[in-house]
Amino acid sequence: MTEGQRQFLRRVWASVRHAPAGTPGQDVEQLVESCATLLSQRGEVSTARIAADAIAAYGCLNAEGRNAFFDALVNDYSPVAADLQRAIDAYQVDPSPLSAHALHQAAEPPRQELFRRLNTAAGGTQLLVRLRADLLPTLEAHPERAGIDSDLVHLFRSWFNRGFLVLQRIDWRTSAAVLERLIAYEAVHQIQGWDDLRRRLAADRRCFAFFHPALPDEPLIFIEVALTRRLAGDVQSLLDPRARVTDPSEARWAMFYSITNCQPGLRGVSFGNFLIKQVVEDLSREFRSIRKFATLSPIPGFRSWLLSARHLMSPDLAAVSLDNFEQLTALPAPLPEEIRRLCAYYLIREKRGRAPLDSVARFHLANGARLARLNWMGDTSAAGIASSLGMTANYVYRIAEVETNHEAYATNFDVARSVTDERLAREVKSAKSAVPA
Amino acid sequence: MTEGQRQFLRRVWASVRHAPAGTPGQDVEQLVESCATLLSQRGEVSTARIAADAIAAYGCLNAEGRNAFFDALVNDYSPVAADLQRAIDAYQVDPSPLSAHALHQAAEPPRQELFRRLNTAAGGTQLLVRLRADLLPTLEAHPERAGIDSDLVHLFRSWFNRGFLVLQRIDWRTSAAVLERLIAYEAVHQIQGWDDLRRRLAADRRCFAFFHPALPDEPLIFIEVALTRRLAGDVQSLLDPRARVTDPSEARWAMFYSITNCQPGLRGVSFGNFLIKQVVEDLSREFRSIRKFATLSPIPGFRSWLLSARHLMSPDLAAVSLDNFEQLTALPAPLPEEIRRLCAYYLIREKRGRAPLDSVARFHLANGARLARLNWMGDTSAAGIASSLGMTANYVYRIAEVETNHEAYATNFDVARSVTDERLAREVKSAKSAVPA
Amino acid sequence: MTEGQRQFLRRVWASVRHAPAGTPGQDVEQLVESCATLLSQRGEVSTARIAADAIAAYGCLNAEGRNAFFDALVNDYSPVAADLQRAIDAYQVDPSPLSAHALHQAAEPPRQELFRRLNTAAGGTQLLVRLRADLLPTLEAHPERAGIDSDLVHLFRSWFNRGFLVLQRIDWRTSAAVLERLIAYEAVHQIQGWDDLRRRLAADRRCFAFFHPALPDEPLIFIEVALTRRLAGDVQSLLDPRARVTDPSEARWAMFYSITNCQPGLRGVSFGNFLIKQVVEDLSREFRSIRKFATLSPIPGFRSWLLSARHLMSPDLAAVSLDNFEQLTALPAPLPEEIRRLCAYYLIREKRGRAPLDSVARFHLANGARLARLNWMGDTSAAGIASSLGMTANYVYRIAEVETNHEAYATNFDVARSVTDERLAREVKSAKSAVPA
Amino acid sequence: MTEGQRQFLRRVWASVRHAPAGTPGQDVEQLVESCATLLSQRGEVSTARIAADAIAAYGCLNAEGRNAFFDALVNDYSPVAADLQRAIDAYQVDPSPLSAHALHQAAEPPRQELFRRLNTAAGGTQLLVRLRADLLPTLEAHPERAGIDSDLVHLFRSWFNRGFLVLQRIDWRTSAAVLERLIAYEAVHQIQGWDDLRRRLAADRRCFAFFHPALPDEPLIFIEVALTRRLAGDVQSLLDPRARVTDPSEARWAMFYSITNCQPGLRGVSFGNFLIKQVVEDLSREFRSIRKFATLSPIPGFRSWLLSARHLMSPDLAAVSLDNFEQLTALPAPLPEEIRRLCAYYLIREKRGRAPLDSVARFHLANGARLARLNWMGDTSAAGIASSLGMTANYVYRIAEVETNHEAYATNFDVARSVTDERLAREVKSAKSAVPA
Repeated sequence: MTEGQRQFLRRVWASVRHAPAGTPGQDVEQLVESCATLLSQRGEVSTARIAADAIAAYGCLNAEGRNAFFDALVNDYSPVAADLQRAIDAYQVDPSPLSAHALHQAAEPPRQELFRRLNTAAGGTQLLVRLRADLLPTLEAHPERAGIDSDLVHLFRSWFNRGFLVLQRIDWRTSAAVLERLIAYEAVHQIQGWDDLRRRLAADRRCFAFFHPALPDEPLIFIEVALTRRLAGDVQSLLDPRARVTDPSEARWAMFYSITNCQPGLRGVSFGNFLIKQVVEDLSREFRSIRKFATLSPIPGFRSWLLSARHLMSPDLAAVSLDNFEQLTALPAPLPEEIRRLCAYYLIREKRGRAPLDSVARFHLANGARLARLNWMGDTSAAGIASSLGMTANYVYRIAEVETNHEAYATNFDVARSVTDERLAREVKSAKSAVPA
Repeated sequence: MTEGQRQFLRRVWASVRHAPAGTPGQDVEQLVESCATLLSQRGEVSTARIAADAIAAYGCLNAEGRNAFFDALVNDYSPVAADLQRAIDAYQVDPSPLSAHALHQAAEPPRQELFRRLNTAAGGTQLLVRLRADLLPTLEAHPERAGIDSDLVHLFRSWFNRGFLVLQRIDWRTSAAVLERLIAYEAVHQIQGWDDLRRRLAADRRCFAFFHPALPDEPLIFIEVALTRRLAGDVQSLLDPRARVTDPSEARWAMFYSITNCQPGLRGVSFGNFLIKQVVEDLSREFRSIRKFATLSPIPGFRSWLLSARHLMSPDLAAVSLDNFEQLTALPAPLPEEIRRLCAYYLIREKRGRAPLDSVARFHLANGARLARLNWMGDTSAAGIASSLGMTANYVYRIAEVETNHEAYATNFDVARSVTDERLAREVKSAKSAVPA
Repeated sequence: MTEGQRQFLRRVWASVRHAPAGTPGQDVEQLVESCATLLSQRGEVSTARIAADAIAAYGCLNAEGRNAFFDALVNDYSPVAADLQRAIDAYQVDPSPLSAHALHQAAEPPRQELFRRLNTAAGGTQLLVRLRADLLPTLEAHPERAGIDSDLVHLFRSWFNRGFLVLQRIDWRTSAAVLERLIAYEAVHQIQGWDDLRRRLAADRRCFAFFHPALPDEPLIFIEVALTRRLAGDVQSLLDPRARVTDPSEARWAMFYSITNCQPGLRGVSFGNFLIKQVVEDLSREFRSIRKFATLSPIPGFRSWLLSARHLMSPDLAAVSLDNFEQLTALPAPLPEEIRRLCAYYLIREKRGRAPLDSVARFHLANGARLARLNWMGDTSAAGIASSLGMTANYVYRIAEVETNHEAYATNFDVARSVTDERLAREVKSAKSAVPA
Repeated sequence: MTEGQRQFLRRVWASVRHAPAGTPGQDVEQLVESCATLLSQRGEVSTARIAADAIAAYGCLNAEGRNAFFDALVNDYSPVAADLQRAIDAYQVDPSPLSAHALHQAAEPPRQELFRRLNTAAGGTQLLVRLRADLLPTLEAHPERAGIDSDLVHLFRSWFNRGFLVLQRIDWRTSAAVLERLIAYEAVHQIQGWDDLRRRLAADRRCFAFFHPALPDEPLIFIEVALTRRLAGDVQSLLDPRARVTDPSEARWAMFYSITNCQPGLRGVSFGNFLIKQVVEDLSREFRSIRKFATLSPIPGFRSWLLSARHLMSPDLAAVSLDNFEQLTALPAPLPEEIRRLCAYYLIREKRGRAPLDSVARFHLANGARLARLNWMGDTSAAGIASSLGMTANYVYRIAEVETNHEAYATNFDVARSVTDERLAREVKSAKSAVPA
């Protein structure tokens, strides 16, 4: 999350507050008391009112107050050891489904019920997503809070189940409240204000987002698509806000050039896979002539990997400074070709465990896509060169083969067959024998 | 559920089916295999497609097939004993939050994840609600299936959390698809077709329902309200389809004369409490002149209780046959008054555990309402006499006192103070001393 | 309009009333005064309030009151003779565009401005449509009211311009308020209550209506469509409420089996032509496999024409009583074939002026359709036999030829080429020579 | 219309075009031919398609082409002299309502029917509004085109009748397509981009617009409102984008600080009066505590009037340069007070005919508002000083008196009673005697 996004979120969250912040001590006391009441309540008669109080109280906390609250969630809302031990003992005596069920319940932290009750009031879901966004950066220093995180993830996996998500097309008729979030959230290729956004929503572009009904103004994830005549390798021409709008009925390709997870509080609750497939289906239905779907993706780890792989380079390439961007954009032949080959090597041969080292490759290959093409100087932005050395990758989604590809990948991480660019594959194969792995 | 409702639901469910039913054996095999694939899948790549297959397959099952599937859910999707034992052992060695969390996970039946994955496809939520409706009637004969029920209830409590429900007003502009469900579901005072329904949605009536976004055509619970000038005790005049429509701006009371849970598959996942309070708030806002809110309720257990309480009756009353409805409607004074007194006694003194014996009284008193009035021959329908001996009860909701009432009730089941009709209360008190409890 | 529809409309209109009816004299005085104020008002400051009063006042009138009001519209809101004469004189002196414009304005009855101002209040459009529905039946007895009618038609042609109409699909999710109007209005094949309607809106049926934004609950015209595998000639099997619902994706034909103008007050403001073409376009887009569009139409004037055409019959046919429905349904060969031939003769040869005598044929042929098939005993209902002698006609709409057909028809009423059933055409041609025209 | 708006509109209109512009000559020929076909067509069978062609053709015209088209509308679509003469003659022989009606029709230019038919296609209404916007600037040089204008105004008065307009609240959830139009159109106090707009739509602000269903993205007129604790006289503090958002529930006043007509093509078709009254009603209903409604208005003609009224000034004031803005903002007492007095004199005494000379005063006083206060340096923007010499005026709308005020104004332009600031009124009265009127 950039500082700009942080500021934006603070502004949004601030608008939820019901009261000006008091001293943090008071606020957190009030919040802890509301939470206690929420669970102690023998009936449910005022759940929603008390939950609303708690939500307002959390909104008034500063970092110190939030820390105190997280501590309370650890200390007061973990499973009760004595109850759990009793359930274990009962299960050991009689390991029936019934006693297993009782054991499961005794092992469930009371936090989960607390969170469910907080959710009964308006703004509850938003509060809990925000709470996790606040929690995550503190986990490293406070490993004992991992349980809070697990409980939230458990709830979110249930609540943000695909069956409850709604795919919406985003265009220039969409509410400004939603559009300003796109501007704030877009992480891959920053949106430079409303005019830039307008171009990205023109007739030859598409944008889709998943929403949850309880967060109607908050996109969870969104994808930006360009409808083109040919497979596009070059980011800058796609992003040019002054580019002529073309007729979408003449397009043959849908290029997914950016996909952004919006909610830090939903990290690890994945939607991307569902989103891409849904969009492929919807576009296939809207346009009879669009039959090919591909990403235009960064290769985020390539440059840093290459810095440590000088032993794989030719002497000429090894002499090039990877820090001098100007020099890079003007490399003489055949160096660009060598870099493309090394990039293929990086994507296909380099692993983390059995999966590809590159995170973007990991995501798309696991989804059943194939690596189709690598483009030299496909992204000449400073960020693009700093991370991907200016390379972009096209991963192609073919509906008919997505399941087989995925199966092959899931079974034995068979990546090489994911490369449709056969020349690249061959070169990499020969590179493999030539190079000490 | 009446036979008529059963038929209706069958019709609705049938419309979800994708294929004509094959032999049950094939269907259930196919379903079981889809479920296995859903969980075995190392990634999520085709979750939604496989879930759609499973949903279609379940729709084709007959009772036999469903039984086989329930057995599979018991046998194949309960916690794995060895894994659970391992988690217990680890916890015993090191009873940390982390090992408690691992224990919790090991004790969670894989059914839950299966259900969450079934929910990724369109129609998943509906399928699971239906599955539980199919399951419940088999529980008595198959106590080993209680775990399936627990898992579904656990999910439904999370999914149908108040924060995700949407209150909608139902009127004559509402979709026929929703309205026909009201006709089918209304359990308290049956709706006699579309003309009857039309009157119940006229300008001096209100109807509200909770919906879940994933079930847009399915009301979960609905409440019917009459806007009146006075506290109404008489059901038949409220229900008369030819009654003149009055001007709602002259109303002072909102009478809740019927509240119906629509989904047998959501039994035990309670919405009624939230619904009443929300409707009280909304009507207060819409009508400045409506300031009093009361139910017009049945007393469902009264007649059968009275049949076993002849020892409390006067000789004259004891001589009356409680089976002769015609005689009942024409009882001479002071017998009606005696019955009213016995009814108050029944509601206030007779208990199940510490709570009132009467289920409707239990519901409203636990919600913080007060018992305000009992009406002789308030419901002269055959059903009304058969269950409530023609009596109706008014429970009053006063926003300001709902929480205190609830607290008093929840703490010590202090019901007597819930009776605002002081004369009744006094009589019951004296009755108490006069009668062997 | 049947008596049932009349009753229905009275019920709907009654719901617009703001006050119980007083004596008609008072009401009409109040209305006339409101109208005077509406136009006298030098500014527009209270137009909407006064218009609302007038609308309410009209709603309270009985037939007598309405007659008085119509008289006032004739007497007080016709062009002022003196002003008109002055404009004529000015134009005669100087026949410029400016003086023509002034003449046009002087000749415009002040009623038009009155009607426009009545329309500023909620319910104004509905009032004016109703006013014309009340006016039309009085025109024969009051020819002096024709000017009121002309003014309303002039306004309605402008207001209900195709550009302002909205096509909506009607299905079981449509509001009951709209659906009950379909039941009330359907004129071709009466809808027998909600269950019949439900079948007509099932998956293998379609229903579309035009709405005007100012009358959101009032369909102006609606069309009922059956999606079938073959050209259908038989009404009863299409209308059977228990007919199995078929899979629409297997349909090849869209059969337009009923088209109903809903608003008597909009008589002569035609929408049917636009509706059919729009529906053809929309269904073409929704279903790639549906490529043929035809009506299943009555031949309303056939039986009464045949009664007067005994000289064209064979002796066998002439001996048949056209009043004995039972006998008709069991006619021995070749009499049905003879009737079919005479029916073709009636549709193609018999004229009113230069256009076909049959009103339904006139409508579809003018729209560019062709007459494709005649079906003996295609409609065996009492009404079907009484008007069409049980015959039905299929008019086919082929998008590609609609304009040419229309042109040919509009130029020289070239109907014969509209008959695709060549055998019929040949027979009719030979019939022509055989028969004294 | 500023150049920025012109550019904006060009961009919007361009997006309607279907084809790149050919040579103007070809385009206009094609358009003229389409129009001829539209009217010659004996039936209506292809109206919508031909209209769509004509709309597209108009979109391709340049200024020259449009001029040619306007000439065609004058020459080919005016009433036919011979027909009109015949109708006059018939009327002279028999001056019946029927012949008056025939005369009215003969005097109606065929343009009107042409325009109605153009409106049958999508985009027709937009086209006609645009056509008038193109026409208006040419009227001075082409007085013969006044008839086209009359016909369009006649249609627009009918089509944009209050009964067909929809009031919508505009806020940050409104579509960006609509919001960008606010930014482009706002004429009184320019909106400085999206952040400025966001502040104007915050919780203590309101914005409402009238829309027509056929132009869903096009506001016709919009009004901006600030909810304040006190009558506000100072524009700049209201417009400050960084001003703290206050709690609207504490507001007592609704300040109408800007009202903008958006469509040059609808000039003279007035909505402002309806809009203000509707907004007063709606805000009264939403906020029980807001009971006072006033404008914060410019006095657009004041400075230029004052420049010509030196004879009314004191010698000290006469010595001040009205061109030196810096000096003006720092005038020593009692000069500001003298200017306020002269401003009141200008608003109340100076006339155009019998109505006030100032256009804004004319509008609000005719609507039934009162002049309540004049604020020195209420608008210190360059534009505010250049036109209003920095003065602002508050016109108060009191629902109860609006009709009486309007009546008094309409009858005898009784403006003095519109001044609630009695001191001002007295001063003006004395000024009157002192000054040669």
